[in-house]
Amino acid sequence: MELQAYAPYLGVVGFIIALVIFGVIKAQPVGNETMREIADAIHSGAMAFLKREYMVLVAFIGFVFFLVSLAMNFATALSFVGGAFCSMLCGFIGMKAATAANVRTTEAARSDGQGKALMVSFNGGAVMGLAVASMGLFGVGIVFKLFGGDPATVGNINGFAMGASSIALFARVGGGIYTKAADVGADLVGKVEAGIPEDDPRNPGVIADNVGDCVGDTAGMGADIFESYVGSIVATIAIAAAAGPDLLAQIAHGDQARHVAMSMPLILAMIGLVFSLIGIASMKFLKGINPAAALRYTTFIAAGGFLVAALIAILALDMRAGVFWAILVGCLAGIAIGLITEYYTSSSPVMRIAEASKTGPATNIIHGLAVGLESCAAPILVICIGILVANNFAGLYGIGIAAVGMLATVGVTMTVDAYGPIADNAGGISEMAGLGPEVREITDGLDAIGNTTAAVGKGFAIGSAALTALALFSAYATTVKLQAIDLIHPKTVIGLLIGGALPFFIGALTMTSVGRAAGKMVDEIRRQFREIPGLLEGKPGVKPEPGKCVDISARAALHEMILPGMTAVVAPVLVGFVLGKEALGGMLAGATLAGVLLALMMANGGGAWDNAKKFIERGDLAGEKKGTDAHKAAVVGDTVGDPFKDTSGPAMNILIKLMSVVSLVIAPLLINS
Amino acid sequence: MELQAYAPYLGVVGFIIALVIFGVIKAQPVGNETMREIADAIHSGAMAFLKREYMVLVAFIGFVFFLVSLAMNFATALSFVGGAFCSMLCGFIGMKAATAANVRTTEAARSDGQGKALMVSFNGGAVMGLAVASMGLFGVGIVFKLFGGDPATVGNINGFAMGASSIALFARVGGGIYTKAADVGADLVGKVEAGIPEDDPRNPGVIADNVGDCVGDTAGMGADIFESYVGSIVATIAIAAAAGPDLLAQIAHGDQARHVAMSMPLILAMIGLVFSLIGIASMKFLKGINPAAALRYTTFIAAGGFLVAALIAILALDMRAGVFWAILVGCLAGIAIGLITEYYTSSSPVMRIAEASKTGPATNIIHGLAVGLESCAAPILVICIGILVANNFAGLYGIGIAAVGMLATVGVTMTVDAYGPIADNAGGISEMAGLGPEVREITDGLDAIGNTTAAVGKGFAIGSAALTALALFSAYATTVKLQAIDLIHPKTVIGLLIGGALPFFIGALTMTSVGRAAGKMVDEIRRQFREIPGLLEGKPGVKPEPGKCVDISARAALHEMILPGMTAVVAPVLVGFVLGKEALGGMLAGATLAGVLLALMMANGGGAWDNAKKFIERGDLAGEKKGTDAHKAAVVGDTVGDPFKDTSGPAMNILIKLMSVVSLVIAPLLINS
Repeated sequence: MELQAYAPYLGVVGFIIALVIFGVIKAQPVGNETMREIADAIHSGAMAFLKREYMVLVAFIGFVFFLVSLAMNFATALSFVGGAFCSMLCGFIGMKAATAANVRTTEAARSDGQGKALMVSFNGGAVMGLAVASMGLFGVGIVFKLFGGDPATVGNINGFAMGASSIALFARVGGGIYTKAADVGADLVGKVEAGIPEDDPRNPGVIADNVGDCVGDTAGMGADIFESYVGSIVATIAIAAAAGPDLLAQIAHGDQARHVAMSMPLILAMIGLVFSLIGIASMKFLKGINPAAALRYTTFIAAGGFLVAALIAILALDMRAGVFWAILVGCLAGIAIGLITEYYTSSSPVMRIAEASKTGPATNIIHGLAVGLESCAAPILVICIGILVANNFAGLYGIGIAAVGMLATVGVTMTVDAYGPIADNAGGISEMAGLGPEVREITDGLDAIGNTTAAVGKGFAIGSAALTALALFSAYATTVKLQAIDLIHPKTVIGLLIGGALPFFIGALTMTSVGRAAGKMVDEIRRQFREIPGLLEGKPGVKPEPGKCVDISARAALHEMILPGMTAVVAPVLVGFVLGKEALGGMLAGATLAGVLLALMMANGGGAWDNAKKFIERGDLAGEKKGTDAHKAAVVGDTVGDPFKDTSGPAMNILIKLMSVVSLVIAPLLINS
Repeated sequence: MELQAYAPYLGVVGFIIALVIFGVIKAQPVGNETMREIADAIHSGAMAFLKREYMVLVAFIGFVFFLVSLAMNFATALSFVGGAFCSMLCGFIGMKAATAANVRTTEAARSDGQGKALMVSFNGGAVMGLAVASMGLFGVGIVFKLFGGDPATVGNINGFAMGASSIALFARVGGGIYTKAADVGADLVGKVEAGIPEDDPRNPGVIADNVGDCVGDTAGMGADIFESYVGSIVATIAIAAAAGPDLLAQIAHGDQARHVAMSMPLILAMIGLVFSLIGIASMKFLKGINPAAALRYTTFIAAGGFLVAALIAILALDMRAGVFWAILVGCLAGIAIGLITEYYTSSSPVMRIAEASKTGPATNIIHGLAVGLESCAAPILVICIGILVANNFAGLYGIGIAAVGMLATVGVTMTVDAYGPIADNAGGISEMAGLGPEVREITDGLDAIGNTTAAVGKGFAIGSAALTALALFSAYATTVKLQAIDLIHPKTVIGLLIGGALPFFIGALTMTSVGRAAGKMVDEIRRQFREIPGLLEGKPGVKPEPGKCVDISARAALHEMILPGMTAVVAPVLVGFVLGKEALGGMLAGATLAGVLLALMMANGGGAWDNAKKFIERGDLAGEKKGTDAHKAAVVGDTVGDPFKDTSGPAMNILIKLMSVVSLVIAPLLINS
C-alpha cells in the first residue's frame, strides 16, 4: 500500500490522541463551588447553542443532500454529508474541551501558577487543533481511497469540501453574531451605562459573552480552518486530476506523474499532522519559558520539521524540486501575513488610533477605518508574490500546493488559535468568581498573549482562505474546461461585479444582525437591572438571570445566519446556470478579491481599535486612563470593531471558499453550458 | 463638412453663453457691507487655493508632458496639456461663478424671495454646467479634427482624456481634503466643544468651511464630471477605431461604418449640449413651482429631447437601432442609480441609523457602515443590467455609447449638481451676516434640496465613472490587441489583486489626510478661542482670524494630494511594463470593481449619516432633538461620514478612470509586451 493510503489510519490515531488529551484535561481539578457553577453555566450555554445550531444544520444538510443527489450523484452527496459531519464533530469536541479547560486553567492559575495554567489552556486548544487536523485527514483520506483512483469519480471528492464549507459558514456567521451580540450588549449596558467592570458577575450578559467566546472564537474559528485545510487539499487533488500534459511535466517525472501529484496533498497533510503532534508535545519542555515565546516555538518546530520531511518526500517520489519551492512560499506567506497583522494590531497604527481618541469618537473611528483600509495592501502583495513564485515553479498546481503547505501543520497552528479564547474565558471566570488580583494577573497575562495569537491567527485564516479560494478557483477553471475566463467578455465582467458586491452585501447583513441582536440584549440587561432589586448594587445573594441573555443571543444567531448562508450557496448556482460558466468564473474572482479585502480591513481595523482601547487602559497614552474622554472614545471604536473583527470579517473567509467550492462541485454540469 | 466637425464651434457658443450667464449673475446686487465682506473672504480664499493648486498642477503637467513626449509622441503630449487646460479652465470659471452667485443668492432671498434666489443659484450652477459641457465638446472636437481621421494618429486623442483625468484627481482629492479638514475641524471645536451653532461668525473655521464647499463640491465635482464626460467620448472613439469587422457590423451599415461609429459620440455630445441649453433655459418658466420639482424637470426636458434627437441621428446616419437601445439604457441606468442613492440617503436606512443613535455612537456607526455596505448591491445590479443590454445590442461599443448617453446632457445635470454648494454657501452667508430667520428659512429650503441633488449627483458621478471606466477598459483591451484578459493566468489574478488593493490604499491615505488636517485645524481654532479675548463670548467688534484656517486647509490639501495622485498615475505604468499587458488588464478590472464598491459604500453611508443627524435635528425621531445624547451620537456618525462622502469616496471615481486612461494611453507601447 502506498503512503497516502494510510491517511485515514493516521487520522484515527490523531483523533485518539486528541481524546486522550481531553481526558487529561478532565482529570484536572475544577476549583471551588462558585467556579464550578460559572463554568457549568458557560458549558451548558455553549452546548445548548451547539445543539440548536446543529439541529438547523442537519435540516440544511438533508436538504442539500437531496439536491446534490439529484443534480450530481449519490457519491458526491455522501461526501458532502461526510465533510459536514467531520466539521461538526470537530466543533463539538473542540467546544467540549474548551469549556472544560477554561475553569481548569483558572484553577491551575490559582493553585499552581502560570506554567501549569498555560499547559492546561494549551492542551485545551490542542484538542481542537488535533481534531481539525485528524478529522480532515481521516475524511479526505477516505474519500480519496473511494474515489481518487478513477478520473470518472474523482469529482465526488469535492463534495467533502463543500460539506465542510457549508458548516463553516453557519458556524462562523452564527457564532460570530452570537458572540458579538452578547459582547456589545453586555458592554453597552455594563461598562458604558452602569459603569461596572468587564466580566462583573452582576451583569446578566456576562455568561452569554463567555459562551460567545466559545461558540464564536473556538467553534467558529475551528470550522473556518477545517474548511481551509480540507479545501486546499481537495482543490489541489482536483487541479492534479484535470492537469494537462504540460502542467504534469512541471510537477513530476515519469508516467506516475498524475498519480503522484494527486497523492501529494494527502502525504503533506500526513507529514504535517505528525510534526504538529511533535510541536504540541514540545510544549511540555517549553512551558517554563516566556509563554508567548513557547507558543511561537511550538509552531516553528512543527513547521521546520514539516518542511524537511516534505522535501524528502518530494525527492523520494520523483517530483520536481519546484513543488517544494511552492510549499515553502506557502509557509512563508502564512508567517508573513501573520506578522503584518501583528504590526497593524499592535504597533504605530494602534498608537495613531489612541492618539486620535483625544479629539473624540469621530476621529477615533476615522483613523481606525483608515488603518483597516491601509492594512490591506501589504498582505495582498504577499499573496501576489506567493502566487507568482508558486505559479512560476509549479503552475496552477503550485498555487494549490502552496495553500496545502501553509495549512499542513494546522494541528499546531489551530492549537495556538484555540488557546486564546480558553485563556480569555479563564480570565472571565476568575473575575466572576472573585479570585483576587494574583490569579487575575496570571490569567490576564495569558489572555494578553491570546489576543496577539488571535490577531495573528486571523491573519493566517484570511491568508489561507485567500490561497485556498484561489486554488479552488483554479480547480474550477480546470474542471469546467474553460480555455479562458476572459475579462473582455462582458459576461465575465458582470460576474466579477456581482461577485464583488456579494461580500459587501453579506457584510451589511451580518453587521445589521449584530446591531439588531445587541439592541435586544441591551433591552434585556436594562430590564434585569431595573426589575431585579439589589442586583446593580451588588446585594449578596442577588443573582442575575443569565439564561435569558444566552437565549436571546442563540435565537438571534440562528435566525440571522440563514440569509447570508443561503445567499452564499445559491448565488454561484444561479449565476452558473443563468449566465454561464465564464460569468461564474468572473464571479468567483470578484468575490475572492472583495472578500479578502474586506476581511483584511475588518479584521485588522477591529483588532487595532481593540488594542487602542487597551493601550489607553494600560496608561500608555500620556495623560489618559480608564474613564477619561479619550478612553470613552476608544471604547466606541472597540465596540464598532467587535462585529468587524469577529462577525463580518471572518464571514468573508468562508464566503469566498464556500462559493468557490460550490462552483467546483457543480462544474461538471456546466462544462457544456 | 459633416456634423461632428462643428463640435468645436458649438463648444465655443456654449462657453460664450456660460460667460453671458456669469455676466448676468455679476449684475445682481451683492447686499450689505457684512455680506460683501464675508463673500469676499470666501471668494479670495477659494481663488487663493485654486491659484496654489494650479501652480502645483502646472509643474505636474509639465513633467508628464515631458514624459509623454518621450515615451509616446508629441501630439499625445499636446492633447494631454489640452485636456488638463480645459479642465482647469472649467474649474476656474465655475468657481468664479459659484463665489459670485452665493452672496447674490442670499441677497435675492432677502429682497426678492425664493423664486429669485433659486434663479440666481441655479444660474451660478449653470455656468459650471455649461463650461464643463462646452469645454469638453470644444476640446474633444479639436483633437478629433486633428487626429480622428487617420488610424495612425487616433490614439493621440486619448491624451486629452488623460489630461482631464489627471487634473480631476488632484482637484477632487485636494478639494476633498480641503473641505473636510475645514468642516470636521470647525464642527469638532465649534459645535461639539464650544457649543455654538453651525456657521457661527465667531468660529474662525467657518470661512474655510465655506471655501471648502466651493473648492471641493464645485471645482472637485466639476473636474470629476468633466473627466467622465471626456473619458466616455474618448473611450467610445477608441473602441470604434479598433473595432473588428464583426463589431462594426453590429454598429452601422455600409462602408462608412467605422467613420460613423467614431463620429457618433461627438454628435451625441453636441445634441446633449443643445438640449442642456434648452433645459437650463426652461428654468425661467419653472421657477415659480416647487424648486425641487423645477430642478428635476430641467433635467427631464433635456434628457427627453436628447433621446428623441439621438434616435433621429442614428437613423439618419444609417446606424443600427441597437445603438439607440444602448444609449437609452445608459440614460436609464444613470437615473436608476440616482434614485437608489436617494433611497439610501433619505428613506428607511436613514431612520434605522437615527434609531440606532439612541444606544450611542457605536451603534450609530455600526448601522451606518451596514447601510453603506448594503447600498452597493442595487447600483451594481443596475450597472450589470446596463452592460448586459448595451453589450447585447452593440457589443463593447454599446458599453461606451451607453456611458456617452448617460453623460451627454451633462450641461444640465452638472448645473443641478453645482447649484447645491451655492445654496449651501448662501445659507452660511445669511447665518454669518445675521440676516434673521425669514431669509434663513429660504436659504435653508434651497440648501435642503441641494443636499438631495448632491446625493443623487454623487450616485450619478459613481455610475458614470463606473461605466466610463468599463468603456476605457474595453478600449484598452481592444487597443492593446489582447485576445483575452484571462483570469486563469496567475498574472491576471495578481493584477486583479493589486488593482483591488489600490482603492483601499488610496482610501486610507485620504482618510488619514483628513484626520491629520482636521487635527491641525482643531488646534488652531482652539488657539484662537483661547488667545483672542472676547471672541467666544461674542463681544462686538472682536473678530476671528479666518485666514489662518484657510491657510492650514490649503497647505494640508496641497501636501496630501501628491501621494495618492502619483500612485494612481504610476501604478498602471509600473504594472504594465513589469508584469505585462494582461496583468494590467486584470489590475484595471480589480481597481474598477473595488473602487466602485468603496465609492458607493462611502458616498451612501456618508450621506445616510448626514441625513440621520438632520432627521433628529428636525425632531422626527420621537423624544430626541438637537443636544440629546442620540443627537450627539448622530453628530459622531456625520463627522465620520464627512470624509467618506466628500473625500475618499469621490477620489475612487477618479482613481478608476485615471488608471484606465493612463493604461489606454500607454497601450500602444504594450502591444508587443
